[in-house]
Amino acid sequence: MSSRKKMGGFSSLQNVNKSLEILNKHLSKIEIKTEKVPIHDSCGRIASKDIKATHNIPPFNRSAVEGYAVISLDTNGATPTDPRELEIIGTAEAGVEPKDIPKVSKRKTVEIYTGAPIPTGSDAVVMVEYTKRKGDSVLIHNPVTPWKNISKKGEDFLKGKTIIYKGTRIKPWHIGALASMNIQSAPVYRKLKIGILSTGNEIRELGEKVKPGEIINSSRPMLISLVEERHCLPINLGNVPDEEEKILEKLLISLTKCDIVITTGGTSLGMKDLIPEIIGKAGTPGLLVHGVAMRPAKPTGFGVIGKKPIFMLSGYPVSALIGFEVFVDTAINTILGTPEEPKVMIKGKLTRKLATHIGSKSFIRVKIIRENNGYIIEPLRLTGSGLLSSITKANGILEVDEDIEGYDEGDEVNVRVLQSPDITV
Amino acid sequence: MSSRKKMGGFSSLQNVNKSLEILNKHLSKIEIKTEKVPIHDSCGRIASKDIKATHNIPPFNRSAVEGYAVISLDTNGATPTDPRELEIIGTAEAGVEPKDIPKVSKRKTVEIYTGAPIPTGSDAVVMVEYTKRKGDSVLIHNPVTPWKNISKKGEDFLKGKTIIYKGTRIKPWHIGALASMNIQSAPVYRKLKIGILSTGNEIRELGEKVKPGEIINSSRPMLISLVEERHCLPINLGNVPDEEEKILEKLLISLTKCDIVITTGGTSLGMKDLIPEIIGKAGTPGLLVHGVAMRPAKPTGFGVIGKKPIFMLSGYPVSALIGFEVFVDTAINTILGTPEEPKVMIKGKLTRKLATHIGSKSFIRVKIIRENNGYIIEPLRLTGSGLLSSITKANGILEVDEDIEGYDEGDEVNVRVLQSPDITV
Repeated sequence: MSSRKKMGGFSSLQNVNKSLEILNKHLSKIEIKTEKVPIHDSCGRIASKDIKATHNIPPFNRSAVEGYAVISLDTNGATPTDPRELEIIGTAEAGVEPKDIPKVSKRKTVEIYTGAPIPTGSDAVVMVEYTKRKGDSVLIHNPVTPWKNISKKGEDFLKGKTIIYKGTRIKPWHIGALASMNIQSAPVYRKLKIGILSTGNEIRELGEKVKPGEIINSSRPMLISLVEERHCLPINLGNVPDEEEKILEKLLISLTKCDIVITTGGTSLGMKDLIPEIIGKAGTPGLLVHGVAMRPAKPTGFGVIGKKPIFMLSGYPVSALIGFEVFVDTAINTILGTPEEPKVMIKGKLTRKLATHIGSKSFIRVKIIRENNGYIIEPLRLTGSGLLSSITKANGILEVDEDIEGYDEGDEVNVRVLQSPDITV
Repeated sequence: MSSRKKMGGFSSLQNVNKSLEILNKHLSKIEIKTEKVPIHDSCGRIASKDIKATHNIPPFNRSAVEGYAVISLDTNGATPTDPRELEIIGTAEAGVEPKDIPKVSKRKTVEIYTGAPIPTGSDAVVMVEYTKRKGDSVLIHNPVTPWKNISKKGEDFLKGKTIIYKGTRIKPWHIGALASMNIQSAPVYRKLKIGILSTGNEIRELGEKVKPGEIINSSRPMLISLVEERHCLPINLGNVPDEEEKILEKLLISLTKCDIVITTGGTSLGMKDLIPEIIGKAGTPGLLVHGVAMRPAKPTGFGVIGKKPIFMLSGYPVSALIGFEVFVDTAINTILGTPEEPKVMIKGKLTRKLATHIGSKSFIRVKIIRENNGYIIEPLRLTGSGLLSSITKANGILEVDEDIEGYDEGDEVNVRVLQSPDITV
């Protein structure tokens, strides 16, 4: 019962931003290996270096429209009533080699299709809309300036220029850009391996039989899914009972195979609060923050062993979720050198007064309701911070900073969207 | 050259919203099979029926805090200077069976840990912060009301109540909720199979050698990635040359194995505009819309054969992307009966005047730049709508409705975010 003396609350809570500062300071020097992956598998991954254009795109001057490739001077002064008549000497289809397309000379033209190479001698294309066919000739009704309707070689991507900067999260259109240059693989950071270790004597695994007094682990399946959403690799480290030696042993093994370790449970103060103590014993710098000025998720903490962060999240799934989004997300982004992904936010008016605690950052679960052309925001009335239903019944989270006492009814607030407001929750 | 006569532009363009209305009318009756997937694989999938709680969660009354399980009446009037002394008759740890925990009777208490079952006889828990140990007794400094600090059986999820409604996109916290009830699989709609067929004589595949005049297919890799992002199954239907019979044959086979078919290329008006004609020949109701009042992506169109939609997207990747987001996304959501996922939006002030075309919906690629506490929005100056670099150099898209002529410098606009504004683009 030696640690019983600590019961009575956290001696001091660390501010959220200060905690993040401490975290980032310790993570900034971590280097993660890179790998080349087929571009089809690169979506959502982070570019590990600047990727430059290997070819000019388009690779040749090509027509942006259907029409007639001309010498622009030949169209000077053309109008529908005073058209210029040009002799059609051939056709340029997409995919045809430039050498097989007739050369355009004065008063001659080549019928051309979108994407086809511009014939030698031509410097512009007249859109078919501004022409009239007349046997083997065509009447040009409008003049064109040089380079009109031509996609110039290299105008999309110029060989040697950077197309994707280091730290960019690769999106489908980047994959399109890489494909256009026949680049088959992309340099990205290796997927971060994030281990998830649960503690708690009462915890059973999904599918296991539960005896009275036991519960099924709901945090780990949720955390695995969150890790996968971030394109990282979840490592299921299982569950260990609340015994110091077993947890320490498991933690040390986990640190050899993971980049980040998350523990759940065992972080509130009391007899079972082994994890913070164990992190202190596992190595240096050890425990950095334990107890954060936030509601829920106050018992969140973290330490660093060597260069690897260990996050202590609550055993309550909602607190674990918020601890993950505030701290683990930051760690992932800092290690990979990429900015936070922008979140979906919606503005709306509060349906009722909301009181929050000065000194703590609050994460209020709310219901966003579509009304007229806007939204109204209904804070949920909660009976317990651990309730998972507070998230499944909510479709948004309102973050209230430490220095704000709350809001009045009717105040406009900016809420993060968890789920479409058009879904029944 | 028979279809040459059609060159000269679309006879009429369909409005975007009207097109979506036509699309939704034809899709609303489609039924997609459902399947059960392990909850670990259900993230992002759409629930195919209401999922109800199979158990009460918590499954038993349990302590929400560390402290002492008491009879609340025994704490009446307690203060630090006039505490109530209760005899400690045992301990309730998390995971212990309720039958192994001593019954609490008058003036007795059980030391209890977070998550442990509430002993028989007890109706409240006093937090350890408000107590003082005194040998085998504890001094209670504050009174508690009945049910204080107890998570009641079923207070999170009540057996039989719906926890996830049909049409909900499953998120990590839903997986947590299902796990808490030991539910191992979730009923979801089968992944929609979306075939992607490219046309164009000039198109070569990623990794192939290109001759002068040919280009690598960049739209299909991008579309495959977009389809995967939406948790659908991309089917690579390859590339067919611009020949009517070959395209028709391929299309008919594709319709037997896909729920949705996307074609790229061959949709602008001219000699090669085979696809719209082919859709008309493939079955009924056939071609529904060809030519949409939007910029870019004007040549977008779609038809329905039987109950299966076929989308004709532009061969230009940017137009294909916008056509996909406007039409294919809508089709996916309509077929699966789920609302559109809310998009990330940012408000900012335009750096310059922007003119758009009345009568067409414009999708202006913009650069969102962080400035002071807000954002400024710089519309990109484009030389061609087909340029993929207009998306890789942009980090946002400003949608301008048909009835708006544009905006003035300094106007506040709401922009969809493609990429974090803190990434170099």
